[in-house]
Amino acid sequence: MNKDLILLGHGSGGKLSHQLLDDLIIPTLSSIPQAGQNDAAVLDHGGVRLAFTTDSYVVEPIFFPGGNIGSLAVNGTVNDLAMMGARPLFLSAGLIIEEGFSRIELGKILATMRQAADSAGVRIVTGDTKVVPRGKADRIFINTSGVGAIEHGLTITGAGAKVGDKVIVNGTIGDHGIAVLAKREGLELETDIQSDCAALNGLVAEILAEGEAIHVLRDPTRGGVATTLKEIALQSAVTITLTETALPLQGAVKGVCAILGLDPLYVANEGKLLAFVAPEAAERTLQRMRRHPLGKEAAIIGEVTAAGAGRLQLETAVGGVRAVEMLAGEQLPRIC
Amino acid sequence: MNKDLILLGHGSGGKLSHQLLDDLIIPTLSSIPQAGQNDAAVLDHGGVRLAFTTDSYVVEPIFFPGGNIGSLAVNGTVNDLAMMGARPLFLSAGLIIEEGFSRIELGKILATMRQAADSAGVRIVTGDTKVVPRGKADRIFINTSGVGAIEHGLTITGAGAKVGDKVIVNGTIGDHGIAVLAKREGLELETDIQSDCAALNGLVAEILAEGEAIHVLRDPTRGGVATTLKEIALQSAVTITLTETALPLQGAVKGVCAILGLDPLYVANEGKLLAFVAPEAAERTLQRMRRHPLGKEAAIIGEVTAAGAGRLQLETAVGGVRAVEMLAGEQLPRIC
Repeated sequence: MNKDLILLGHGSGGKLSHQLLDDLIIPTLSSIPQAGQNDAAVLDHGGVRLAFTTDSYVVEPIFFPGGNIGSLAVNGTVNDLAMMGARPLFLSAGLIIEEGFSRIELGKILATMRQAADSAGVRIVTGDTKVVPRGKADRIFINTSGVGAIEHGLTITGAGAKVGDKVIVNGTIGDHGIAVLAKREGLELETDIQSDCAALNGLVAEILAEGEAIHVLRDPTRGGVATTLKEIALQSAVTITLTETALPLQGAVKGVCAILGLDPLYVANEGKLLAFVAPEAAERTLQRMRRHPLGKEAAIIGEVTAAGAGRLQLETAVGGVRAVEMLAGEQLPRIC
Repeated sequence: MNKDLILLGHGSGGKLSHQLLDDLIIPTLSSIPQAGQNDAAVLDHGGVRLAFTTDSYVVEPIFFPGGNIGSLAVNGTVNDLAMMGARPLFLSAGLIIEEGFSRIELGKILATMRQAADSAGVRIVTGDTKVVPRGKADRIFINTSGVGAIEHGLTITGAGAKVGDKVIVNGTIGDHGIAVLAKREGLELETDIQSDCAALNGLVAEILAEGEAIHVLRDPTRGGVATTLKEIALQSAVTITLTETALPLQGAVKGVCAILGLDPLYVANEGKLLAFVAPEAAERTLQRMRRHPLGKEAAIIGEVTAAGAGRLQLETAVGGVRAVEMLAGEQLPRIC
């Protein structure tokens, strides 16, 4: 492994991504300490609190069951804003298109973006289109950046987890990653696995009704639930214990993971969130989530069991406890 | 020409770009009418006026005399905010990197981004890194989005040009495009042509001291001075007349253009702006600009000569007048 080169794993969202961020990108570009890393930046300007975030989407294939690169780009950025407790307001759309790409496919993707934006209640207000010669990009890449308003006094960050907090997920895990992988590899499945790609801002608004009991919100995209929880454990300096039997998992996703040797804890989600909630409000929050269309299968999957250490551990189905680390290399490239 | 495919010219910033925007992208993604198109969107939120903009950078080569893709990405987005009369505040950085790209080159690019941001007085506050397999992108693409504050009551838009306005440019034209082209093609020049890549927000602040006399500000990037002025002529429904002999042009740039059959009016700039100024304030504005390091060679290059028609015309050195249209196809791909 040549240390001077960028590897696929540097884009995985896992350990190598974090190393690149911590060693090179963040110290060079900004002065935000690692503990300050969140899905979006929070900015104060003129007495208004704004959240600002960006993501580029390079998913392959660009059309997959349950969505396409366009819905992914809109929902992903909406979700990054929502995870900061912000109300998403405005999006930008930056297109990089390979020469020879189909206008019809472009039209379909743009229509999906508009639909996703309308459905999430955000407006796409500015954009940019670049075209590169054939072979210099792979069909289409989309960047969306977003601005949202923080209209409450709560501080929702990855550093907010407290001992005793319950960890709630709003539904089955690994659906997006396996849907994209199955389509890419042409797997013939008995059950069609759909990506969970969805905008979570409506669900977040429900959850935030619990006020100060809500400590952390984060969407487990690249790197999956395990990597995201490990990040939060580090940011909050706590130990998080997951209960394997409590993890909601579709049978078909479980089957594909078993056959291909993938761990669903590391598979990307695009319509899931993890909420850290004070214990006295956990059951109420769970019920609120289950009343929302995107939270019907919400479940408590773990809790913050100790202070210190930045540890994530899993109580396995057979009663053991094992440490869980971030995704080390790259499990599934170009998943988002 | 297959009408169903995206062509290089669709990314030129010229006529094909406008067709794609007007026929497909804007009607699908948003409801902003063509006359509302500007370098950035202006948003009202909580009594605060914000400008929001995005641009992706795909320049090739990524290092060129006078800058690299990093300084271009920061300055370009700073300039789009400044052209709306906004004070640039916050930037995002979205990196798409090809597997195998050099960490050392990445470090150089990021350091340049930071330097450019510091020098323009903006902060890079959020980012994203994706890595795609070798051959699926060309080294590195960078998206920057930006948020700025509009702290005055002026309305600076492409629709604001008025009959009698003088058109001022802050220096020589075509430098960026020719610097990139010369490097890309390995042209051996006697004089090293440097890109004019620079942040224009400081210069804009000087210009805005003239208040309501400033009607339009725009940076003539892709498509060059001609395409930008034609856009403004259309948005403002006026006729603009340029004086060929007044156009500031470096000898070396003129020489390369002559040899390669390029028209400098269509060559990209990255540190130039066009200001439309009420006639009574034009001379004062020119003097203000000339006192600024980025405006030493500022010149009045034309004026708004009539209402209606959306025409751009050039009074040539030999005394004729000819119509000037937008860049039709793609003169220099991947210039920014």
